[in-house]
Amino acid sequence: MVVEIEIICVGNELLIGKTLNTNAHWLAKRVTSLGAAVRRVTVVSDEIDEVASVVREALKRKPRFIITTGGLGPTFDDKTLAGIAKGLRRKFAVNENALKMVKKKYEIFLKEGKIEKVELTPSRVKMATFPEGTKALRNHVGTAPGMLASVGETSLIALPGVPPEMEAIFEESVTSMIKKEAGKCVFFEKSIYVDGLMESNLAPLIDQAMHNNSGVYIKSHVYGESRLRAEGQGPHIELHFSTTAEHRTVAKKQLDRAIGQLSLLVQKSGGRIRSAA
Amino acid sequence: MVVEIEIICVGNELLIGKTLNTNAHWLAKRVTSLGAAVRRVTVVSDEIDEVASVVREALKRKPRFIITTGGLGPTFDDKTLAGIAKGLRRKFAVNENALKMVKKKYEIFLKEGKIEKVELTPSRVKMATFPEGTKALRNHVGTAPGMLASVGETSLIALPGVPPEMEAIFEESVTSMIKKEAGKCVFFEKSIYVDGLMESNLAPLIDQAMHNNSGVYIKSHVYGESRLRAEGQGPHIELHFSTTAEHRTVAKKQLDRAIGQLSLLVQKSGGRIRSAA
Repeated sequence: MVVEIEIICVGNELLIGKTLNTNAHWLAKRVTSLGAAVRRVTVVSDEIDEVASVVREALKRKPRFIITTGGLGPTFDDKTLAGIAKGLRRKFAVNENALKMVKKKYEIFLKEGKIEKVELTPSRVKMATFPEGTKALRNHVGTAPGMLASVGETSLIALPGVPPEMEAIFEESVTSMIKKEAGKCVFFEKSIYVDGLMESNLAPLIDQAMHNNSGVYIKSHVYGESRLRAEGQGPHIELHFSTTAEHRTVAKKQLDRAIGQLSLLVQKSGGRIRSAA
Repeated sequence: MVVEIEIICVGNELLIGKTLNTNAHWLAKRVTSLGAAVRRVTVVSDEIDEVASVVREALKRKPRFIITTGGLGPTFDDKTLAGIAKGLRRKFAVNENALKMVKKKYEIFLKEGKIEKVELTPSRVKMATFPEGTKALRNHVGTAPGMLASVGETSLIALPGVPPEMEAIFEESVTSMIKKEAGKCVFFEKSIYVDGLMESNLAPLIDQAMHNNSGVYIKSHVYGESRLRAEGQGPHIELHFSTTAEHRTVAKKQLDRAIGQLSLLVQKSGGRIRSAA
């Protein structure tokens, strides 16, 4: 069974187009490579009610994991954990373990002479204020800990928005959880590039190859200046083959078979296979 | 009143982390610059039921506009319009105006000697198969037309996933619709950069400046290797000020006032303003 994951990104900077959502891209790639499947990505603003709504909506779809990014820091606009608490209808209070993690960071700063004393100001305690009954995840790159909540069959994980912190907590605490669920499933992909055929001419050939190779997904991507150019001159069409299987060798064999069949169909129709990646 | 917009991006390539979602970024930036506000971005797979669900969910929130990207092409996996038809419970049939647009493209290819005759194959007719009661939007860059549907108070717009085509239809047909609704509203933003203070020390200063400058939103962004570095050495904190106002001069004055006040607070706390953008 496919391990389904939803990603929720919290941050006004994403909704005003200030920041490109590289976190969603990184997570999607990583989750896929672990053999699980991202079913949905949702981006919402830094508002408690928005976060609460989107968390509740995602939980209703019962994915195995929900991963949020952003909104764990010390400033007023970091509202993800308050939003999750509201969404889960849980109390929002200081998590002792998270507070220890935060305190430890400032003790390191003290040793390094970066601060004069360890003060747990309200802004710093804020980073350790969690929905009740959740677990803190160590952030060895930054200050704000991540969070793990179990809600029915779903593990809800909150990661920071600063990319190296998000990635570090994911690798340290989340990768193993997903891998355990996904088992031996592997995602396999391979691309070939086609010249001399329009996408609309490729369409029925793709249908045929898909029909003969169940389990393999084939998607065409038009590059270059435009689809018009590709339709007219055909220089920029990628055919992307992918599959998820329990064994590496099975997956590879399935893809190679589909690629071989579609390549033949393309050549019979006057197209050229430009290169294989 | 704020003109609210939701963006829905359709495409497995986004969910497997193959493609970075630059379309959502471009649209969010453009929509914000027109004085409207993106409330949510949702990414879903190339499945009719997924598209139907996400469209229905978005319509329930009654945004003024919903803009979808992707899934308008000739191949089997281009299912956005079928999904919208299902979501709106409308028939899915050939749109005569869209078919004329598609036909015209192939007549151009014929003239250019790229094809030998104009054949409206099923894959090509597919690009002109629309939910009933909707309008085709001209695509002067590519082949597949965009779509406009009116659903209650919401205008639902479907754009292609190929970036130059998406941008071209947006500029030709959508910009004026949004501008008309947003009226004279303008979005204004300005950043300053802070050295020598931790984000957790900045937090209460930001609170104070926000309190004294209603309508101005101030968000801190930590750059560099990590928040830890920024917490420890403070070299990479951006303070981003933004507001939406009816007049350019009013917006500018509001931002300058907030920047002046927060700069003073930062300096009083021992921080340095590194540069102003």
